[in-house]
Amino acid sequence: MRESSIPEEVCKVLDKVVGQTYGELHEPYFSKDEEDMLIECLKSTFVSSVSPYTEKFEEDIARFTGSKYVVAVSNGTSALHSLLIACGIGPGMEVLTPSLTFVAAANAISYTGAIPHFIEVEEKTLGIDTVKVIEYLSDKLIRSGEVFINKETGRKVVAIVPLHTFGHPCDIDGVMKIAKEFNLLIIEDSAESLGSYFRQKHTGTFGLGGILSFNGNKIITTGGGGAVITDDEELASRVKHLTRTAKIPHKWEYNHDLIGFNYRMPGLNSSLGLSQLRTIEKKIEAKRKLYQVYEKEFANIEEVEIFKEPSSTTSNYWLQTLLLKKDNVTLRNAILETSHKWGYKLRPAWTPMHRLLQFSNCPKMELNVTDSLFARIINLPSSPQIVLSRLDN
Amino acid sequence: MRESSIPEEVCKVLDKVVGQTYGELHEPYFSKDEEDMLIECLKSTFVSSVSPYTEKFEEDIARFTGSKYVVAVSNGTSALHSLLIACGIGPGMEVLTPSLTFVAAANAISYTGAIPHFIEVEEKTLGIDTVKVIEYLSDKLIRSGEVFINKETGRKVVAIVPLHTFGHPCDIDGVMKIAKEFNLLIIEDSAESLGSYFRQKHTGTFGLGGILSFNGNKIITTGGGGAVITDDEELASRVKHLTRTAKIPHKWEYNHDLIGFNYRMPGLNSSLGLSQLRTIEKKIEAKRKLYQVYEKEFANIEEVEIFKEPSSTTSNYWLQTLLLKKDNVTLRNAILETSHKWGYKLRPAWTPMHRLLQFSNCPKMELNVTDSLFARIINLPSSPQIVLSRLDN
Repeated sequence: MRESSIPEEVCKVLDKVVGQTYGELHEPYFSKDEEDMLIECLKSTFVSSVSPYTEKFEEDIARFTGSKYVVAVSNGTSALHSLLIACGIGPGMEVLTPSLTFVAAANAISYTGAIPHFIEVEEKTLGIDTVKVIEYLSDKLIRSGEVFINKETGRKVVAIVPLHTFGHPCDIDGVMKIAKEFNLLIIEDSAESLGSYFRQKHTGTFGLGGILSFNGNKIITTGGGGAVITDDEELASRVKHLTRTAKIPHKWEYNHDLIGFNYRMPGLNSSLGLSQLRTIEKKIEAKRKLYQVYEKEFANIEEVEIFKEPSSTTSNYWLQTLLLKKDNVTLRNAILETSHKWGYKLRPAWTPMHRLLQFSNCPKMELNVTDSLFARIINLPSSPQIVLSRLDN
Repeated sequence: MRESSIPEEVCKVLDKVVGQTYGELHEPYFSKDEEDMLIECLKSTFVSSVSPYTEKFEEDIARFTGSKYVVAVSNGTSALHSLLIACGIGPGMEVLTPSLTFVAAANAISYTGAIPHFIEVEEKTLGIDTVKVIEYLSDKLIRSGEVFINKETGRKVVAIVPLHTFGHPCDIDGVMKIAKEFNLLIIEDSAESLGSYFRQKHTGTFGLGGILSFNGNKIITTGGGGAVITDDEELASRVKHLTRTAKIPHKWEYNHDLIGFNYRMPGLNSSLGLSQLRTIEKKIEAKRKLYQVYEKEFANIEEVEIFKEPSSTTSNYWLQTLLLKKDNVTLRNAILETSHKWGYKLRPAWTPMHRLLQFSNCPKMELNVTDSLFARIINLPSSPQIVLSRLDN
């Protein structure tokens, strides 16, 4: 196909599959149940930070993910921030995380005083390239007792924060191997992967703790919200304490024993989450079906492909991904430009962290695949309504 | 009166004025309008961080407070944190704030890397004792060019964060005098004083910027929420940028030029705030009336008095305050203990910041009045419903 005609061909497929109504990247899906839950919460007056709705939402998320403990908070960023602190991450330490991630991960690491150390991703999962990373760390780190030190910076490298990019589980087996080899804590950024599984086990449950996001563009939303999930009782209790201004429980006294945070999820938001979670299976099914439709319809444009869930995983297909087969920023931008004119809010990947000024001095390995994927990824409209609205008609 | 009979006498007054239904310290007041706004927001799908409901709420808060610019955020803590950073507060600096405050103020200062420096309050406003503070600073600070240095710590003292305690405006004239004398920024903690005025001008509008809270216990609630208010366009724009992950506006690119925060108020919460604000005058009127009722009914117990708004101010009377005339922690605790048994959730003041372990090494002046007030303050049930429910009947 002539390169100049590809953007228009992409839009024609979107016209066929999506239609203008669902041209946003990801819109929330609400029904009467959401209305009822909000009104119930309002009538109870428990709309704020001490609320049975938040406790119930935590129980439901625990059941759904198979985690023992859940702490619901204001968003995915505050979830990661409080989890990192509860794990003991702080100044003078380095935390490994992909450069191809949302800025919130690198920000949350920075809030603790630790330094993000950017690592490479692989094409088959869009997540950490565990083979290259093991090789890199073997050369880069030196053991000192129980910990490993970055030979160049002299700082302890203490944790790894894998991302399940666009909902697709990364190579968790490989991540666990890295963690074992270099004595690292695993803190899973599963902000995008609620309802995604690696060998039938929910993402976010493989490390010491994981985090979720319920932002408006996620598979379920609480308006704004997030959660920490973990099987470690002591860790959950530290996160809960930190996110409630570190207040020592007492009938009336206001004592606090740490510099804590005001991160608790309000009951109003939890009540929305409770009803959202009830239809998650239906939404995932619709999103998995959408992958099949996109895969079939884009097959005729040979310069592109639709990203498929990695083997051994079941993905929630949060954001559908069109991949250019070759690095071509010009073509990528032309597709983005044309699609926006046609009413489809296509989006490239986030600018990789190592290219942002505020993180440009952070340690990093060679990031060729990251740079290549950045030039090739285009996220497509992914709302479950695209499929559900057809089934309803 | 015999000291041992005072707790029971206090509870008898509460039985007469309050009744068990409104025994909590402060409960939100909702009507059908709140339900309608939530449903409208849900139907619009704009429940999350990009929402016309948040923009509208900001406009309404601007109009109500007489501020030019408002940025709605996740809570009062994040409002103060982002405002401090936007004002250039950071490591190596000290920020003056009363020790008699909620822990969030000292926490927010700490998040920036600055050190809280605790100052004394006065009995007639429960806010900063500006006379004593001027005297203290004259002795404690030394000028170095445009700034003043703490002679003992060597750090720059750059800002003062007055609190309008329990809704009562502090001595703002005096605070402005201090700020002028020592070249300090004024950042007003008006978390508790929405609807309170100092000489007909809204609290939070006297300094460079102020913050509000819409937590569940406040005079209006958004479930969880807060706002920065300011007349400075450039400052408002920095706060907005910081609280939106410092994303550079673009149709599709994800670039960020600072370590920012995920602090934006979700539309769902803003929609609740929109309807809450419509009845604020009614709530303030009820709360001011409640003061008169308490004042009259407690007049028979000579060991106590009800705190009255300072002269030149109009207070929202957010939390009604019973003051023991003499320091007496034993009596205070007996009243708290008995009232809780009777179903009234009375509360002492927050433990002063200089008594918390995490702030025990922070610089401070003599805090005798703070310690005395801590032994004497008891907050009473203050919901507007206490009065409104009678008017409705």
